[in-house]
Amino acid sequence: MKPGTPAEFDADDERQARAAWSALAEPGDRDAHKLVAEVGAVRALRRVLSGAGKARWRVRAPDLNPRRELRTVERFGGRLLIPGDPEWPQEITALGVDTPFCLWVRGPLDLESATRRAAAIVGARACTPYGEYVATDLGDGCALRDVTVVSGAAYGIDGAAHKGALAGGGPTIAVLASGVDRAYPRGHEALIDRIATMGAVVSEVPPGRAPTRLRFVERNRLIAALARVTVVVEAAHHSGARGTAMRAIRMGRPVGAVPGPVTSASSYGCHRLIRDDGAICVTSADEVAELALPMGECLPEPPPPPSDPLHDLGPAERRVVDALPARSPASIGSITRAAGLVESDVVAALTRLADAGLAVEDRAGWRREGVG
Amino acid sequence: MKPGTPAEFDADDERQARAAWSALAEPGDRDAHKLVAEVGAVRALRRVLSGAGKARWRVRAPDLNPRRELRTVERFGGRLLIPGDPEWPQEITALGVDTPFCLWVRGPLDLESATRRAAAIVGARACTPYGEYVATDLGDGCALRDVTVVSGAAYGIDGAAHKGALAGGGPTIAVLASGVDRAYPRGHEALIDRIATMGAVVSEVPPGRAPTRLRFVERNRLIAALARVTVVVEAAHHSGARGTAMRAIRMGRPVGAVPGPVTSASSYGCHRLIRDDGAICVTSADEVAELALPMGECLPEPPPPPSDPLHDLGPAERRVVDALPARSPASIGSITRAAGLVESDVVAALTRLADAGLAVEDRAGWRREGVG
Repeated sequence: MKPGTPAEFDADDERQARAAWSALAEPGDRDAHKLVAEVGAVRALRRVLSGAGKARWRVRAPDLNPRRELRTVERFGGRLLIPGDPEWPQEITALGVDTPFCLWVRGPLDLESATRRAAAIVGARACTPYGEYVATDLGDGCALRDVTVVSGAAYGIDGAAHKGALAGGGPTIAVLASGVDRAYPRGHEALIDRIATMGAVVSEVPPGRAPTRLRFVERNRLIAALARVTVVVEAAHHSGARGTAMRAIRMGRPVGAVPGPVTSASSYGCHRLIRDDGAICVTSADEVAELALPMGECLPEPPPPPSDPLHDLGPAERRVVDALPARSPASIGSITRAAGLVESDVVAALTRLADAGLAVEDRAGWRREGVG
Repeated sequence: MKPGTPAEFDADDERQARAAWSALAEPGDRDAHKLVAEVGAVRALRRVLSGAGKARWRVRAPDLNPRRELRTVERFGGRLLIPGDPEWPQEITALGVDTPFCLWVRGPLDLESATRRAAAIVGARACTPYGEYVATDLGDGCALRDVTVVSGAAYGIDGAAHKGALAGGGPTIAVLASGVDRAYPRGHEALIDRIATMGAVVSEVPPGRAPTRLRFVERNRLIAALARVTVVVEAAHHSGARGTAMRAIRMGRPVGAVPGPVTSASSYGCHRLIRDDGAICVTSADEVAELALPMGECLPEPPPPPSDPLHDLGPAERRVVDALPARSPASIGSITRAAGLVESDVVAALTRLADAGLAVEDRAGWRREGVG
């Protein structure tokens, strides 16, 4: 094959044409997405191969080899998903014209059913031990509730959320900015391989591609699109996680943010999301699940804390408790004046308090019992 | 004076009549407040003294001695405020029928002007070092901005907020559930005395009275009423601070809550306020002042953090930066293919990047400069 001539492939095949587009155009290339949406991937590709279309697509045309890339992903036990496939996740269509041409996938998880009850849990790479603890705990809690954890496999919060989900034996999806065969960051190669064994590793760029700044930014829109809610655990001022949350907000999806100490720069982005962007303050896996689960499958409210006997008193009893001495007993007359009630009400209240074990009478009068 | 006969006083004097009512009826006694609002303090008092009115008021009538109580508060350098006095705080009228009959006050602060720019800072007695730090910091920050700190002089958050305000040389108001001459808690006697020297100590019950559970609850409505915003720093599940916040919400006043670690039971009440009750997430004294200051006196937004050169790049420059190798230089052709742009755009972007110190050219080609 001489330079400038595309490798042999069937440009009339929708699958190969979409694979080709994922190589020709960078993620989020609005012109490319629009053209493919308008005329279809096959006709749009034909135009580029015949020398029409944007010059930035034509420069990559000579290197196209979707057949080889499909073979590569299959060698990894992976697959290519395109719109119309039964496994194509319906949640992703919220991206509208920015919907990816295709998804390159490794791992056994069925993307369509897993994303119908999914929460994106994202956050800072440089997180604190607090953030790492909370992300792991939320990941584990989602697993317990069969809520899929979607994240970016980065160091810090992302990795902790995936690890929590894996530890809980729950479904998890890593969305990469690189090809699905190219673990990034390298230090998470084992984690990403394990997600590919238990869950799914997903990318919109073909195998072999390196992550770039642009691909990270656009990858974040996929994370937001593959989950019903995006929860940010820790985020500094400028952060990719905040960007992911803003994409979710623009899609009309709920966004949660985990609060933290106001003295921690790592919680700054979360507090801004709650203050300025309408994010929901999220403090537990129950609250994440409530946002991630389909309507009608919401979890019950957590049980109320055990009750304090003093809290269940009526106003008269409460006044009488206040008026009762703790040590030396008092007469009903003196309790009546101290409580500012009439005597008959005081006597009735004392009887009820004695029944509740909160007041006791001896020969000298009444005193408090059972409470400080 | 024989028992059952009130001490000598002028029941026709509005000031003495209101002082008498503050002794006859417990704080928040809706019937008493309604009667006084309808017929005036003097006529209402005459009714009780003539044997009419609620029996719970009549039982206390024999002990009335407002003249002595006025002398007591004056001996402490204090005063009695009633509606119509120039110093009567207008903010308090938001309580409607629950407005106190009078306010017993110690300290030099002018209540009316001080409460026009005031924030209530309240929270748990059993607070964490984090909560204590934040409360002190907010108190000090309010002082710097001449925002009055209103609180309850309790251990924990309340005390820390007062101390922060005193440390910053700012105005502060302690609202007590006991008489203003009776420091409660005893361990805060020195603090309360210092507030009475620098700011104001306020109560709706006459001198000498002990605090009771009911008086604590109703005291909290005064704290909320004497400030334009109520900010909760730390609060567990059942807490007086949350009650104060709910009173502020019912008055239509803004409520702020300081977030904290979701792993801390002491921040539970704050997170509930933000999640369930519409409280504003508050992270700094600037944000407290913004809610406490009259409209038009709002502080400017904090300056944006210093900018990251990579954040100011256009889309073409960003792609080219991504495509540039960090070490061995690359040709313009190879950068063009990697960036997925046309060559002329790449050359233009490289020129701008070189100007910004982000790319460098040598004989072998272009490489990245200045950024990781």
